[in-house]
Amino acid sequence: MSAKSIAVLTSGGDAPGMNAAVRAVVRAGISKGFGVLGVRRGYNGLLSGDVEEMNLRSVSDIIGRGGTVLYTARSPEFNTPAGVQKAAEACKKLNVVGIVVIGGDGSFRGARDLTGAGVPCIGLPGTIDNDIASSEYTIGFDTAMNTAVEMIDRIRDTAESHDRCSVVEVMGRRCGDLALQVGVAVGATSILVPEVEWDFQKDIIDRMRFAQKSGKQHFIIMVAEGVGGTTELAKKIQETTGIETRATILGHVQRGGSPTLRDRVVASEMGYRAVELLEAGSSNRVVIMRGGKIVDLDITEALSMQRVFDKKLYDIALQISI
Amino acid sequence: MSAKSIAVLTSGGDAPGMNAAVRAVVRAGISKGFGVLGVRRGYNGLLSGDVEEMNLRSVSDIIGRGGTVLYTARSPEFNTPAGVQKAAEACKKLNVVGIVVIGGDGSFRGARDLTGAGVPCIGLPGTIDNDIASSEYTIGFDTAMNTAVEMIDRIRDTAESHDRCSVVEVMGRRCGDLALQVGVAVGATSILVPEVEWDFQKDIIDRMRFAQKSGKQHFIIMVAEGVGGTTELAKKIQETTGIETRATILGHVQRGGSPTLRDRVVASEMGYRAVELLEAGSSNRVVIMRGGKIVDLDITEALSMQRVFDKKLYDIALQISI
Amino acid sequence: MSAKSIAVLTSGGDAPGMNAAVRAVVRAGISKGFGVLGVRRGYNGLLSGDVEEMNLRSVSDIIGRGGTVLYTARSPEFNTPAGVQKAAEACKKLNVVGIVVIGGDGSFRGARDLTGAGVPCIGLPGTIDNDIASSEYTIGFDTAMNTAVEMIDRIRDTAESHDRCSVVEVMGRRCGDLALQVGVAVGATSILVPEVEWDFQKDIIDRMRFAQKSGKQHFIIMVAEGVGGTTELAKKIQETTGIETRATILGHVQRGGSPTLRDRVVASEMGYRAVELLEAGSSNRVVIMRGGKIVDLDITEALSMQRVFDKKLYDIALQISI
Amino acid sequence: MSAKSIAVLTSGGDAPGMNAAVRAVVRAGISKGFGVLGVRRGYNGLLSGDVEEMNLRSVSDIIGRGGTVLYTARSPEFNTPAGVQKAAEACKKLNVVGIVVIGGDGSFRGARDLTGAGVPCIGLPGTIDNDIASSEYTIGFDTAMNTAVEMIDRIRDTAESHDRCSVVEVMGRRCGDLALQVGVAVGATSILVPEVEWDFQKDIIDRMRFAQKSGKQHFIIMVAEGVGGTTELAKKIQETTGIETRATILGHVQRGGSPTLRDRVVASEMGYRAVELLEAGSSNRVVIMRGGKIVDLDITEALSMQRVFDKKLYDIALQISI
Repeated sequence: MSAKSIAVLTSGGDAPGMNAAVRAVVRAGISKGFGVLGVRRGYNGLLSGDVEEMNLRSVSDIIGRGGTVLYTARSPEFNTPAGVQKAAEACKKLNVVGIVVIGGDGSFRGARDLTGAGVPCIGLPGTIDNDIASSEYTIGFDTAMNTAVEMIDRIRDTAESHDRCSVVEVMGRRCGDLALQVGVAVGATSILVPEVEWDFQKDIIDRMRFAQKSGKQHFIIMVAEGVGGTTELAKKIQETTGIETRATILGHVQRGGSPTLRDRVVASEMGYRAVELLEAGSSNRVVIMRGGKIVDLDITEALSMQRVFDKKLYDIALQISI
Repeated sequence: MSAKSIAVLTSGGDAPGMNAAVRAVVRAGISKGFGVLGVRRGYNGLLSGDVEEMNLRSVSDIIGRGGTVLYTARSPEFNTPAGVQKAAEACKKLNVVGIVVIGGDGSFRGARDLTGAGVPCIGLPGTIDNDIASSEYTIGFDTAMNTAVEMIDRIRDTAESHDRCSVVEVMGRRCGDLALQVGVAVGATSILVPEVEWDFQKDIIDRMRFAQKSGKQHFIIMVAEGVGGTTELAKKIQETTGIETRATILGHVQRGGSPTLRDRVVASEMGYRAVELLEAGSSNRVVIMRGGKIVDLDITEALSMQRVFDKKLYDIALQISI
Repeated sequence: MSAKSIAVLTSGGDAPGMNAAVRAVVRAGISKGFGVLGVRRGYNGLLSGDVEEMNLRSVSDIIGRGGTVLYTARSPEFNTPAGVQKAAEACKKLNVVGIVVIGGDGSFRGARDLTGAGVPCIGLPGTIDNDIASSEYTIGFDTAMNTAVEMIDRIRDTAESHDRCSVVEVMGRRCGDLALQVGVAVGATSILVPEVEWDFQKDIIDRMRFAQKSGKQHFIIMVAEGVGGTTELAKKIQETTGIETRATILGHVQRGGSPTLRDRVVASEMGYRAVELLEAGSSNRVVIMRGGKIVDLDITEALSMQRVFDKKLYDIALQISI
Repeated sequence: MSAKSIAVLTSGGDAPGMNAAVRAVVRAGISKGFGVLGVRRGYNGLLSGDVEEMNLRSVSDIIGRGGTVLYTARSPEFNTPAGVQKAAEACKKLNVVGIVVIGGDGSFRGARDLTGAGVPCIGLPGTIDNDIASSEYTIGFDTAMNTAVEMIDRIRDTAESHDRCSVVEVMGRRCGDLALQVGVAVGATSILVPEVEWDFQKDIIDRMRFAQKSGKQHFIIMVAEGVGGTTELAKKIQETTGIETRATILGHVQRGGSPTLRDRVVASEMGYRAVELLEAGSSNRVVIMRGGKIVDLDITEALSMQRVFDKKLYDIALQISI
């Protein structure tokens, strides 16, 4: 192994584009003179020694593949002070001078702790849920949104042929971004997100009735995971309107697939930036998108931020999806 | 309206490729000197007079669109002798000398009854479930299978990244064809269909264990709609193996989408054939695929046939998906 | 027709997402109390009276469709002072108090002239080439990039199977953005754009040789339309390296297809913003993206701006695509 | 290496589904007690000793990938009696009792020669061109057709927006099947194939004029590779009709991509069948599709057959694509 190495791992839920980020870290690291170690199954790999020296060809032809070639997993052992200490010692034995951690807020807390134990860490936002307050954009979000749109475009075909209403639940955990963006893109009559209070009669039924008067006969109602209750909602809509209504929960399909251009490019830029930061001696930073640009921020500060919901886009949807 | 018209309608569940069939009927009908009427919402349109004279441009740019531009619906009224009689009279008033009915076995029973009431009918097999005994292939089957494969390829990405097992349920009603074909195409470790008895330990767990020994760490278990119990099965697999297991029911996404080439071409050939039959004075026929060729058969005979399951392909899957 | 109407037209080359913008203008216009007129085939429709009153349902189910339902065309007659005058008079007869023009810089010059003749115009950037200096992003760019990526991922399969080099030319006119982004996303060994000087030996052959030493045996060379010479370049690479090399010019496929989520959402936001501007009495503005946000700018100022090429991303590509 | 091994190689142009066939051969071979050797870059690998022992996991997760993991290449050395002899001797040293050759007619001639030299060979039809006379279907054909359809659907969007004519050339070498099927699926106004004589005025211009009278304003003209002259044809159509006309040659994009369900399943069945034949002691056979079923045939007989063009489908297209 090299005298000075950096390591890279993926942690938490997988997201399309993670491979593009791993590839950028490996190639940029080698280009800047580091050895690069791939750590498998998140922080677990540090504890169990499941690491591998990477070379330029280790990351060939992965930019277009979904999932993560480094695998990912939760690590209960790492989530203890003893675990963090053990991981830090493993890093020292491997001459690891910095780690790039690709994941969500939970993974960043681990990165902060590991930095505290003497191993400089840089976080990259990788999650399909876009639920990281500090960054406008997370790796995987664009692919997940486009997958959801493709699937709902298909559901629309059958809803239209049968004059039906479709209630569709998309992922996003506590964050309504995915439901909002996808709802705008598929022209959903109503969009239910955790960030905005809604009323069954006013925000669903009245809007359906209004659209029906202008001739509309099929409807899509978009529900964020953080709202839930999709099956019951479909039943209630059918009982109230008499329109045949079906519930669909899109599920894990949204997590996979070849990443879109945006996820590949943003992940490449962020991965490169992470190595630049390690090269410059920075630590405890998270690479984020702000104002459409790739910048970085202290992890601790990032973790304390509050998400801002795009209420303007929500209000636009109310006017143009009718 | 023309002196001699034929009519076309879509009935039962919608399927990709129905529009290609409608287009072929309209264009072939006009080319052979008929007027062509589009009937909306299945047999309902005959009863309510929801019909429209079609011209060459009525079916422009629909060959690539999912769903059915003629809409589809169940018709309880038509399913009575009085309803059939009323529909037959409506046809006579419209100078309809023949009807092309695109749908499944239920729709064919209606076509047989309407033929009996004096309106020559020709059936085209249109259903994503491939559950029509008389035909090797039904319009929409290829698109639905490919949609399922695309989605499961995505699910596999995340299953692989997390070393998980995914239990995926696809459509098909009582027919296991869709599950079998898709299961082969995605390399499912086990395929559960209504046509073949299965044992939890031998057909699922033992196969997973065997594959695990050779190094496999993620698994797809394919379940046909006609087997069901997907959520419970996932739980049982997780409890038995300790491998994290997730259930996904693909749902209505499988019904929509732009039809594949095969569905477009077969639907075009079948639609054309239906008009040839009406032109030749045939009635009570269903157009089917047999031995890879488009042929036709008496509807009553077709309805009495028994489906044959492709046990050979099932046995191949057992050997190569391991 | 309404007492106060706004009009919307698409001009120049078509781009995916134009329909989403048209839909947003129509729905937002109606929601804000305007009549809305759809003008066909760009400025020609104003001159020939090819306009249609739009209602909420005129734009149903178009958000997911490529091309433009309003059609588009060049208009030599409009490009004269007399033509502009004639168009302005037509607008007055139709009670048009504002026009939303979706297109590129050429279309914006028309919008500026028409504003000068007394008809307030708002421009929306719609072109797959991203070649509008004032805006970070143009409607259609994301779809075109993703289409190119999908196609090149396919080309890569065959290049890899045969140990070949593929030289691929993408669109973009004089702008290298599309080639740069797509080149990063497909991991092209070299990216040739009009904005950066390049040397055959150093920027192509030496990079191929270096990658070959690490084990790479297939290569993609990305060429922007503004660089051209793709077929000759392929020949020269083959002669120099002995590696079998094929040229592909992706062509018009890049212009079509169902828009991605990003194009649908950005087009919706921009279309809405255009109507807000007309409602507020603004004119001669172009709606743009800056710092990731939708803002607006004087058209004349916008037309005088110089494009900035993302040299940082270009340099990153040099390090990570090797 | 095992006492008794079979080998598998891919030869000639690559085709989607070749990996599914390789996987089926490997898994079926192991399941039936053979060792299985993967031979790289076609017959070259036999001559150069570029072979690898395969196990169950060697072919994991390749069923959905385009190209061929065994690579492919032409082999001038093998195409000599001395080359065949050398290959046969290499096989004997490796204890190879049979070889599965996936490719086209050229590859089958090699298989026949190698059988003659004492190494039993079985051919599988793998080519996107469907130009193997003995088989109704070749592995890769379905994927290539669907890729072409997706691309032409995109071209249609822009042709429609601009009221243009698009002349599109698809692959197929001397065989018009791909052009015919794709032409039907995209509703091409004219389809030019090598198997049918055509007249510029009658088969293109007159058909465009007829369709124009009914209101059609955009056109797709499909040209088979075996007809060619696409760019000149586009010019001539524009000069004759005054309609703006663009030529597109789809190129190598058609060769790649994740295989469709049909290619995955047919390839799996054919691969399995090949191993069954070797197990039964057969040699010099090619596995083909006939009457929709997988059967086998003597290679020498297969090579002497003449292709039959589907003139019936061609005539249907003339009537319904107008």
